[in-house]
Amino acid sequence: MKVNGKHFRSLWWNAEAEVLEIIDQRALPYEFVTQPVRTVAEFAAAIAEMRVRGAPLIGATAAYGMARAMADDPGDVNMDRTWDILHATRPTAINLRWALDRCREALRPLPESRRAEAALTLAHAIADEDVEINRRIGEHGVTLIREIAARKPEGEPVRLLTHCNAGWIATVDWGTATSPMYQAHDANIPLHVWVDETRPRNQGALTSWELGSHGVPHAYITDNAGGHLMQHGLVDMVITGTDRTTRTGDVCNKIGTYLKALAAHDNGVPFYVALPSPTIDWTVADGVADIPIEDRDAREVSHVQGTTADGGLGHVRVTPEGTDALNPAFDVTPGRLVTGLITERGICDATGEGLARLFPEHARNAETQLESGKPRGS
Amino acid sequence: MKVNGKHFRSLWWNAEAEVLEIIDQRALPYEFVTQPVRTVAEFAAAIAEMRVRGAPLIGATAAYGMARAMADDPGDVNMDRTWDILHATRPTAINLRWALDRCREALRPLPESRRAEAALTLAHAIADEDVEINRRIGEHGVTLIREIAARKPEGEPVRLLTHCNAGWIATVDWGTATSPMYQAHDANIPLHVWVDETRPRNQGALTSWELGSHGVPHAYITDNAGGHLMQHGLVDMVITGTDRTTRTGDVCNKIGTYLKALAAHDNGVPFYVALPSPTIDWTVADGVADIPIEDRDAREVSHVQGTTADGGLGHVRVTPEGTDALNPAFDVTPGRLVTGLITERGICDATGEGLARLFPEHARNAETQLESGKPRGS
Repeated sequence: MKVNGKHFRSLWWNAEAEVLEIIDQRALPYEFVTQPVRTVAEFAAAIAEMRVRGAPLIGATAAYGMARAMADDPGDVNMDRTWDILHATRPTAINLRWALDRCREALRPLPESRRAEAALTLAHAIADEDVEINRRIGEHGVTLIREIAARKPEGEPVRLLTHCNAGWIATVDWGTATSPMYQAHDANIPLHVWVDETRPRNQGALTSWELGSHGVPHAYITDNAGGHLMQHGLVDMVITGTDRTTRTGDVCNKIGTYLKALAAHDNGVPFYVALPSPTIDWTVADGVADIPIEDRDAREVSHVQGTTADGGLGHVRVTPEGTDALNPAFDVTPGRLVTGLITERGICDATGEGLARLFPEHARNAETQLESGKPRGS
Repeated sequence: MKVNGKHFRSLWWNAEAEVLEIIDQRALPYEFVTQPVRTVAEFAAAIAEMRVRGAPLIGATAAYGMARAMADDPGDVNMDRTWDILHATRPTAINLRWALDRCREALRPLPESRRAEAALTLAHAIADEDVEINRRIGEHGVTLIREIAARKPEGEPVRLLTHCNAGWIATVDWGTATSPMYQAHDANIPLHVWVDETRPRNQGALTSWELGSHGVPHAYITDNAGGHLMQHGLVDMVITGTDRTTRTGDVCNKIGTYLKALAAHDNGVPFYVALPSPTIDWTVADGVADIPIEDRDAREVSHVQGTTADGGLGHVRVTPEGTDALNPAFDVTPGRLVTGLITERGICDATGEGLARLFPEHARNAETQLESGKPRGS
């Protein structure tokens, strides 16, 4: 999306210099820094140091890393070594493994002489597919915004609320939850977005930076404020992203999403979740019971990062010395609180039936696997 | 309550030096600083600069300020002048006005020669009354904690969650929401308190300091985390304070309280609100519709205060430069989400009937006033 009036993806291939250009996301939202990534070691560092972040973006970056490796040495040994090096950077990132496997499976059967070009073509395809998935999510989501706008007096903005950063910088472009917002804005539908701060890591600052850079009106609010705004009719719809969605429509997303879903439900505000279908986990039915939630470093809670008075980056400790803190990173919003799921194939109910309608092939597979796993006689 | 093993009130009269000693709350939770307040000008500064904060504490401080003035010059002119000076420090604080009016009404009929002593006696009485009200709130509240403890395996802590700082430093002693906690802890009931950070001003850090200083086990969490903890059975009861309670049991408290009440309701966790009866507003029935909510300075949201790397106090800006922020300071939790109100007279349902049972004299007055305000024939 746009930064200072110019369109950017969160990565792009510089064909002349034969390097990948990325945005160093560690400097966001305070500074916009782009940089070239040249060697496999640099690709590994960019992922490990979270200069690139967000599942789709990591996957695409790794694919370009494999392309870089194949240009240097297209042999099998180098292919496997590159797989290992890049996979080790974020070993739990499913998308990273998926992208690397896809590259290796496609390249292995090819003669070495064709691998470099094929790898680069595949990396482009992976990046473009992500853009296309998110564009479609936006296309479906914008219909909901348009319906709300049609019921409002001329010129009155549709008021959205979002949590965390399911934005374009976590994908290759568009973002998931933000894609309908950008498409609505670009279609001249008046919008105003309430951006949840999203403690402890304040990803709301990233979302604010994104929206501000693209020109979408918004305001930053504490995570505590959304319920009050809904009580007073100041939120027309909530749209969030998700890290993992169960086959029954439970949504595992950044901690605090559940509280906003409760408030939306209590106030009759539609609560939508935008997701690319690869993030649906067809093996899990009960999100609250069966999705393990990562407890992260307590320091993320006790210390807050931002710009200091002298303009540099710094931290302050907000807790008294020695105070314990707990830092669960995600929570699960039961499907019953979710008005609908916005996917690249369309919008469905957050239920097993809803998802099965849009993704019959996955739903059938999941059922077969569950059947075969059942004890006899049951 | 205790600080470093020694019992403190948040103010106390030093009879020898004839000064009021206070805790400079601006330095909390990072430093514990006590200081004498000597002149009426110093009393006014202590209130205006929020060295003392919290409605009951401000009221008691003002009463001591009036006592100081009467010792200097017990004449009517000085009495009125002192009323004006002290009232101007926080003109919207109901408790401040109430305490100053009470002093003036009691002192005016007395001969000047008796006013100094009477004013000091009255200040002591106002402080002691606050302590007694909060002690009783704790006495009633601890019965709830005891019941939960009785259902638990020996030694397993009762897990409470609280929001904001309804603690002893906002009152003269005990606090409101914290009073049951301190009494349970002092009675050797094993406790663990989840302390909500309470953005934007992070009053959770004050609560953590209080609980830590008194030895009550606790952990600091983001405002986003409570729902997840409740989903996983890690919260046995929520207790918060309130700034204003309607005669129907709606609770206006620090922003975000409503979200915790929704989560408690969704998970069958009891949600109690502790309140001294003077904070009940008998004139208001519908809290969401009729209690105006203050929007405070956006800088409280965009900037976070804490200790810097060099140990001093500082701020970081968490938002991108130029980002708008909205900062509603309170929200209203409808009585239907509140399991019960813990008052100095006992525990009641958060309904008109519940409150009328405990406070029949107020309820009758409120009804008469409403009746007389009704249009004829309705």
